[in-house]
Amino acid sequence: MTIALLTDFGTRDPYVAAMKGVLASRTNVPVIDLTHEIAPFDVLEAAWFLGTVVPYWPSGTIFVCVVDPGVGTSRRIIACERDGRVFLAPDNGLLTFVAPHEIHSVENTALFLPNGSNTFHGRDRFAPVAAAIANGLPIEEVGSRIDRIATLDYDPPSYSDAVVHGTIVAIDRFGNVITDIEASRIPFAPFALHIGKRTIDRLETSYGDAAPGSFLLVGSSGRIEISIANGSAAEELRVNRLQRVELRPL
Amino acid sequence: MTIALLTDFGTRDPYVAAMKGVLASRTNVPVIDLTHEIAPFDVLEAAWFLGTVVPYWPSGTIFVCVVDPGVGTSRRIIACERDGRVFLAPDNGLLTFVAPHEIHSVENTALFLPNGSNTFHGRDRFAPVAAAIANGLPIEEVGSRIDRIATLDYDPPSYSDAVVHGTIVAIDRFGNVITDIEASRIPFAPFALHIGKRTIDRLETSYGDAAPGSFLLVGSSGRIEISIANGSAAEELRVNRLQRVELRPL
Amino acid sequence: MTIALLTDFGTRDPYVAAMKGVLASRTNVPVIDLTHEIAPFDVLEAAWFLGTVVPYWPSGTIFVCVVDPGVGTSRRIIACERDGRVFLAPDNGLLTFVAPHEIHSVENTALFLPNGSNTFHGRDRFAPVAAAIANGLPIEEVGSRIDRIATLDYDPPSYSDAVVHGTIVAIDRFGNVITDIEASRIPFAPFALHIGKRTIDRLETSYGDAAPGSFLLVGSSGRIEISIANGSAAEELRVNRLQRVELRPL
Repeated sequence: MTIALLTDFGTRDPYVAAMKGVLASRTNVPVIDLTHEIAPFDVLEAAWFLGTVVPYWPSGTIFVCVVDPGVGTSRRIIACERDGRVFLAPDNGLLTFVAPHEIHSVENTALFLPNGSNTFHGRDRFAPVAAAIANGLPIEEVGSRIDRIATLDYDPPSYSDAVVHGTIVAIDRFGNVITDIEASRIPFAPFALHIGKRTIDRLETSYGDAAPGSFLLVGSSGRIEISIANGSAAEELRVNRLQRVELRPL
Repeated sequence: MTIALLTDFGTRDPYVAAMKGVLASRTNVPVIDLTHEIAPFDVLEAAWFLGTVVPYWPSGTIFVCVVDPGVGTSRRIIACERDGRVFLAPDNGLLTFVAPHEIHSVENTALFLPNGSNTFHGRDRFAPVAAAIANGLPIEEVGSRIDRIATLDYDPPSYSDAVVHGTIVAIDRFGNVITDIEASRIPFAPFALHIGKRTIDRLETSYGDAAPGSFLLVGSSGRIEISIANGSAAEELRVNRLQRVELRPL
Repeated sequence: MTIALLTDFGTRDPYVAAMKGVLASRTNVPVIDLTHEIAPFDVLEAAWFLGTVVPYWPSGTIFVCVVDPGVGTSRRIIACERDGRVFLAPDNGLLTFVAPHEIHSVENTALFLPNGSNTFHGRDRFAPVAAAIANGLPIEEVGSRIDRIATLDYDPPSYSDAVVHGTIVAIDRFGNVITDIEASRIPFAPFALHIGKRTIDRLETSYGDAAPGSFLLVGSSGRIEISIANGSAAEELRVNRLQRVELRPL
């Protein structure tokens, strides 16, 4: 079993270190960092990150996700389960790509740190609740069952015989431009990608063998990416996250 | 038991990885990172970070703190104890907010790495001494007892019926401006905060519900903070760490 | 036993988190981060980092090194051993300073993740192979033995009675300029370092006691460094990594 942390706290401020202290005070289950580098308050970035990595983690992992602009407001904290994995998150869309079952509203204040703050639920609520679950507390006991969670205002890709519409969901450290279009669901081939006034129709199978210029690639999550040999496709093409793209038959 | 690391080494250079190798060679006690992102040589930033997180860590934790501009000079390394927690640090003020008891000067060279360097005591002295303590060595055996540690030149806040004086001690990743003024010790209410020519007198209880503009908040450590909805209060107000602030009755 | 990760993935993208998920799914051996902040595709930076830290890690450590611009091309993945430590890396020079024995080409596809990608071998090949080795698989079983690994195009320092030639191999977070010249092999003393039109001939034994201006120091790996009191020698001298330096008798 592992407690896996995902936040927008960075590592320079003492927030993650305080959360880990609460966890270490209450459980021996190992704690690992998924990332703390989500852009501040960027719930979509966090949701996409989580959706990408969850399939690779074993049943029993407890994901503690704190990207929480609404901390201290009426937004709920939720605990839920999917395929034996447990998720703790603010109810703000962060679990959009997880599609959890068994959703409970975290309301059992006996689980929280005594005299907790109104502004740092990561330390005062998420961490002690995660420790309790890691130590065996059934998630039913965190609070009442609810039917529905908040989801992000996000248009999933659409696939038709004439055109596929998608969105740039991430730009990685290497400058790869990652869309949400699943290669296996594109109904036509060959195809070209259209973004703004640009068209890209060269499809490669690896970064390293590619000739100069931008090209398409099926990325490591099975999604269409735009790359460029020895450079940043994002900079070269001047594209941004959340920009829309189209695929059309060549 | 945990060995918790706090340094200004960053993670791009091989310094933390070398320390962790020495620890892994000598002990099975798990090692976690508090942070390695303290600004280079910023002992006050490290001291404040440490003071903020220590209360959340359990007895038995060994804090290994290496922000050490004086490495290789005559400054001592100290090992000390407070409430069952152990601290290893250069004697340069880093433990100012810990107020340790049982202070020992780390002098037992048999504990150090053989043929150690003069410029990297984190690897050659702190890590092997921490491993020895984790493995059961009583801290008396690291070296002779001393009475006093170095403390930082830092003015704590003053609280009177007419005015409270304090200092900005941190600006976090979200742009929150964090003072050292403890809300529970302010002798008057309501109050306004004065910084330079600015006055801020709106007190909110959460970031997310706040109306536009800067406001005050009791932060997660019980200290007065300045925040702004959806933005960086530090940038908006153009304030800096170590700047002085005043609270006065409204 | 420890699995130690070295990549150029950063921690903001989901790549390291996916690798750790695969590892956690397959082994209980603890995983630690050496660094993920190697500059993208900078195999020499990774190789030097690795060479610096390996001697401090115990026998039994499994180093998983993924700085891999050729992922998906015909470059091999290699598994090898040196002094009881195991290394997994692309065969691109990353192990230049490790000089491993018992080199095997990782070819046993039964060890890989099923339906793995062509662009993320860190997750789909390195992680499951590392987990298998951590769980006891002898490295002979990853694939056929090979005689030779790729090495970087790197000129090691030369030491003669009249002059020592070397290279700047790293500039650290503190601005220290680190050469590959081993102090113990310099055949003359005292000496001066020449870089471009600058000459530096003051040798100090610690950063903290040094007078203003740039000076030489034997760094923590026994190599000649250039430093400056309270500042960045790299910025002050405007030198870059890979620039050549000379030492001559004074």
